[in-house]
Amino acid sequence: MNGSIVRYILGQVIKIEGILLLLPTLTGYIYHERVANYYLIIAGVSLILGGLLTLKKPSNSVFYLKEGCVITSLSWIFLSIVGCLPFYISREIPNFVDALFETISGFTTTGASILYEVENLSRSTLMWRSFTHWIGGMGVLVFLLAIVPLSGGSNFNLMRAESPGPSVGKLVPRLKNTAQLLYMIYFIMTIIEILILVLSGMPVFDSITLSFGTAGTGGFGVRNDSIASYTAFQQWVITIFMLLFGVNFNLYYLLLFKEFKRAFSMEEVKAYLGIVIVATVSIVISLNRYIPAFADNLRITMFQVASILTTTGYSTADFDTWPTFCKLVIVLLMFSGGCAGSTAGGIKVSRFVIGVKTVSKELTGYIHPRSVKKIQMDEKPIDHEVLRSTNVYFLTYTMIFVISMLIIALDKEDIVTCFTAIAATLNNVGPGLAMVGPSKNFAHFSDLSKLVMMIDMLAGRLELFPLLIMLNPTVWKEIITTSGHKKKKL
Amino acid sequence: MNGSIVRYILGQVIKIEGILLLLPTLTGYIYHERVANYYLIIAGVSLILGGLLTLKKPSNSVFYLKEGCVITSLSWIFLSIVGCLPFYISREIPNFVDALFETISGFTTTGASILYEVENLSRSTLMWRSFTHWIGGMGVLVFLLAIVPLSGGSNFNLMRAESPGPSVGKLVPRLKNTAQLLYMIYFIMTIIEILILVLSGMPVFDSITLSFGTAGTGGFGVRNDSIASYTAFQQWVITIFMLLFGVNFNLYYLLLFKEFKRAFSMEEVKAYLGIVIVATVSIVISLNRYIPAFADNLRITMFQVASILTTTGYSTADFDTWPTFCKLVIVLLMFSGGCAGSTAGGIKVSRFVIGVKTVSKELTGYIHPRSVKKIQMDEKPIDHEVLRSTNVYFLTYTMIFVISMLIIALDKEDIVTCFTAIAATLNNVGPGLAMVGPSKNFAHFSDLSKLVMMIDMLAGRLELFPLLIMLNPTVWKEIITTSGHKKKKL
Repeated sequence: MNGSIVRYILGQVIKIEGILLLLPTLTGYIYHERVANYYLIIAGVSLILGGLLTLKKPSNSVFYLKEGCVITSLSWIFLSIVGCLPFYISREIPNFVDALFETISGFTTTGASILYEVENLSRSTLMWRSFTHWIGGMGVLVFLLAIVPLSGGSNFNLMRAESPGPSVGKLVPRLKNTAQLLYMIYFIMTIIEILILVLSGMPVFDSITLSFGTAGTGGFGVRNDSIASYTAFQQWVITIFMLLFGVNFNLYYLLLFKEFKRAFSMEEVKAYLGIVIVATVSIVISLNRYIPAFADNLRITMFQVASILTTTGYSTADFDTWPTFCKLVIVLLMFSGGCAGSTAGGIKVSRFVIGVKTVSKELTGYIHPRSVKKIQMDEKPIDHEVLRSTNVYFLTYTMIFVISMLIIALDKEDIVTCFTAIAATLNNVGPGLAMVGPSKNFAHFSDLSKLVMMIDMLAGRLELFPLLIMLNPTVWKEIITTSGHKKKKL
Repeated sequence: MNGSIVRYILGQVIKIEGILLLLPTLTGYIYHERVANYYLIIAGVSLILGGLLTLKKPSNSVFYLKEGCVITSLSWIFLSIVGCLPFYISREIPNFVDALFETISGFTTTGASILYEVENLSRSTLMWRSFTHWIGGMGVLVFLLAIVPLSGGSNFNLMRAESPGPSVGKLVPRLKNTAQLLYMIYFIMTIIEILILVLSGMPVFDSITLSFGTAGTGGFGVRNDSIASYTAFQQWVITIFMLLFGVNFNLYYLLLFKEFKRAFSMEEVKAYLGIVIVATVSIVISLNRYIPAFADNLRITMFQVASILTTTGYSTADFDTWPTFCKLVIVLLMFSGGCAGSTAGGIKVSRFVIGVKTVSKELTGYIHPRSVKKIQMDEKPIDHEVLRSTNVYFLTYTMIFVISMLIIALDKEDIVTCFTAIAATLNNVGPGLAMVGPSKNFAHFSDLSKLVMMIDMLAGRLELFPLLIMLNPTVWKEIITTSGHKKKKL
């Protein structure tokens, strides 16, 4: 285990966080809030700490997937611990576990909150909450890759550990350029959303924070009723942007380079749109009796479908009061999530496409035993390794889900609450049903349950394995035994 | 598609059912019930119909997996249609859909009932209900294989389609002997249970019917409160026999031939016992506050764990009133099911063992990329094909589950009812939670929902694929186009 590279990258991450903390600090000074000082202090401390950790360059910058996983997991954990300090020391979230829960929920773009009211919070804190979504959406290590020159090809292991979806493609040959391109697309789309919202008459502060939440598919709002009290037009704008940020970013890359044919034949994107349409139509029909005006029904339904499918988690209606069929569709959307290579959480549409193709191939095999067609995606055969790892993903996902649910069931909440609380956190959605429905929050859980859900949010955001690797005792034993003689090992 | 062999085997199955229907007929005559005449009529009709269908020997007795699947599915469907006629024409279950539901529930060893009271039923009908469990437990085609000489090795495709578990092993070289051996073990164990129950003072009728239900892991009882009003000793006897019938029958084969070392090292059986112990201990601790007497707590818990894990579905307590944690454990046991090669339903312990091993291998692969250990079971590497088909099984299972749940959600029952109704039928358990809990029944669903659950019960019993193959339009097109010129094709 290359300990010095772990230290160095962690230092870089904390340094970046120090810089990022200047945004809520600035917000606070604009609104003359005393709480801004706390943000400034933490920013300063982060910069100093990060500076100290990065003073010494790593002796050897080569690392493997295992180190990539450990670095990624630790980065996200340190990011969250540092990021929750302003909440905690400002007493806006006086309980440390809650402050950490809220921050992890922010960075992992979950949007599950322990707060009863958000309108009591300072502007600085609201800004920081939403900004964590934006940072977490594209990933802080991708950001690091975009700006810091790290030698060697092993950085790909970082990107692989942090990026969502079954297989990571480099858009352009150099990883650094891929990371820059991704952030550029992300940045420009966010700016466009902010501009449209401001032009529609939304306050600038709300426009920025809500756009951060949309872009990262996070879900923290700045009003107690989430998005319900904004205008219909503004809700539609957010709906469309949620859907756009749930699309595989390869699409934008292809559009950017005018490869329209390849762009419009992306199977995952088609499946994603198919899900949106089927879910919307079936819920609209089902809600017809309850919301007679078609325009309202369509707006509310489409908003919720987009919000849950992309795992954003904003709401304009309390879907926990909808009929069972609608609630089930919503719960299923939570598991689907958006496209791989987007900022959305969940299991990802591409994995389901692969799953459906696997089953249909099996059936064909029974009927025509001599057919040996390979499973294809985007007209290319899917690599055996991708198929295998997709299956393993489903299995691992199920195990984490079941164990988490059993632990939080000790809290004596009802079954639907337990089930959807894990679905909402492991898929990075935010709200669930019953006691974690859109009008409720996560404060009522025990600290143990909150810890489980924090791990689930991180596991979900990092696609399970990096966190499992980091939590594996063997890996720790190795870190401890080799930390004394790094150079000898490498 | 070899149509004549399909016809011939279906005829044999119906003929066998005609003979089996003589048991309820006899029961009726013993208890001087007029309803016995209906059973006699249907028995006669079955024998004549079966006789006609088997008059002409099949021109060609070779068939492939596809035909095996179609034969198996159709056998079970015809078996159920014929089997429900006595319920229907005797007006004991005056609604045809309900009568069919009850019969499919019987043959598939589910035990989900649409009846509010079973104590009103005639003895003939109670006997037939329980007897369907016994027949369905080991499988009617396995029975056929044991008694009818069918030429060629292609019968293995029948056994493969009807037997539970990821891989079917022949116990002895000849398939016919394997089938006979299985039925012999099954028969003797059932007789032993009946004898012990009779000696314990249980009425003979109850002893026989409950033993049929235990052996087939079915769950239809003869009292309204299922097993609750029998003595503690009798409940323990049933508990132990439920567990014994949930064990892979290979174990008994190995014991019979004194291969003790191999018998006691069967990994699936160990995992199965592990699940029993962990589930029992955790529920006993959790129920401690509600049932203070340890002996009662242990008896009630162990009974329920055995009943649900083996997918029998008997109950001595309304577990729907238990704390959430206990209910969740119960629901998880539904999915696990018993061992492959037993009469139990569910996904089967061996598939979960394979699943856990797959995940742990993946994690090892991340940490030690150069290790190339193969996944092993019972000290032999697992065939790649078994791994693959296990994964496909999980995927297919999930899809059927989700689609079924969405359809029955249209009935506007609550989420827990929808979820556990499908869990209870697809896993062939019987009772679920909420509106399908142990004190409730399945009568309140719409006909569409009942149809879906009938398909699920059959799909669950036949391990998904045979039914999916039979429901596949391509296969039907082939049957129709080749039925006119059978001989030309073969």
